[in-house]
Amino acid sequence: MRSKTPDKRLRILDSAVRVFAREGFFKAKVSQIAEDAGLAPGTVYLYFKNKEDLLISVFEERMEEIVSRFRAAVMEHHDPKSRLECLVRMHLSGFQSDPDLAACFQVELRQSSRFMRRGVKGGLQQYLGLIREIVESGRREGVFRKEVSAGLVTHLIFGALDEVVSTWVMSGMKYNLVSLTGQLVDLLTNGIGSGVSVIAKQGLEVDREADRALS
Amino acid sequence: MRSKTPDKRLRILDSAVRVFAREGFFKAKVSQIAEDAGLAPGTVYLYFKNKEDLLISVFEERMEEIVSRFRAAVMEHHDPKSRLECLVRMHLSGFQSDPDLAACFQVELRQSSRFMRRGVKGGLQQYLGLIREIVESGRREGVFRKEVSAGLVTHLIFGALDEVVSTWVMSGMKYNLVSLTGQLVDLLTNGIGSGVSVIAKQGLEVDREADRALS
Repeated sequence: MRSKTPDKRLRILDSAVRVFAREGFFKAKVSQIAEDAGLAPGTVYLYFKNKEDLLISVFEERMEEIVSRFRAAVMEHHDPKSRLECLVRMHLSGFQSDPDLAACFQVELRQSSRFMRRGVKGGLQQYLGLIREIVESGRREGVFRKEVSAGLVTHLIFGALDEVVSTWVMSGMKYNLVSLTGQLVDLLTNGIGSGVSVIAKQGLEVDREADRALS
Repeated sequence: MRSKTPDKRLRILDSAVRVFAREGFFKAKVSQIAEDAGLAPGTVYLYFKNKEDLLISVFEERMEEIVSRFRAAVMEHHDPKSRLECLVRMHLSGFQSDPDLAACFQVELRQSSRFMRRGVKGGLQQYLGLIREIVESGRREGVFRKEVSAGLVTHLIFGALDEVVSTWVMSGMKYNLVSLTGQLVDLLTNGIGSGVSVIAKQGLEVDREADRALS
């Protein structure tokens, strides 16, 4: 009955995402996660040390899957700008299509002192690594600027994505997050300054609700 | 002895920043904060309900001071790009010169579920409001692009600043954060794409340590 199986482990992680999103990390109880997974509370402890270990494991294991899936999709494109556009779109649509995961990653996870104090950064480093690869490919091909720090560019892209998703989560996920893709890619590529040749505007409209929530 | 004074309240808030930064929000005890302030533990409860109330009060009161100081400095400039540069420099140098506040704002504060769940967002909204004013002045004068969402631009700027400071805090505050000002303003203004006329590079060098930490 209480033997360990990969299937049970996955069920627990899926339930953890749901319960953390619904109850919040602090209020959530391991027993609720067990109940959601249809398991006895003791079974959860066969796989995870405690509630924080569960939260960190959710992040690390989901990130591993996300990074490998995103990388495969991004690398199908050869133009670095299309790679960036693909990444931004997948980042926004990934959270939009999974509100529980969005709440977990953008709100609950940051309440773990172990996470915030950099006890675990594997998943985040992998994701930053993927962004960095896109940046480097653009620099090699001369479509992204080389005279600026590639590390700073990488964090600029991540910071923009993270902020946009956090704002969406905190405003109640009420608008079409993916509608921001075109403008965000445009802003990252061409900047906020008006000294640039304006590119095609088609398909760059931002959802009206999004625009209101960002204000 | 136990009468309330504005001076004591400020002393408690200053001590709270130090103790939260040193011990972390969870481990920190109200009694330690009282001791640091040279007051009896009971005195702290005359001013603040509990530890979380202290953390939120630190944020709200510091933000009010920060936003009014930043606004005064920013508005001394008339060129919107200089305003942006001023804001970025003050944001980075403000945290660099106060590591305890940086740890409090970038790490400890996010561990408060009340903060993360948007129970209190006054200070953050004020700060976003200041960024928005800079963006709007640039749009009016034609130096910032008008065909993109002003809200999205505002969050792009905040997201970039927030990520850059978080990375600095989490990597042990080991490099010159302010050295990122020039490149960050350049990237925000002109984007990462190479299709723009490269502006003067002087003074835009990033600290070598910063570049390594961002990688």
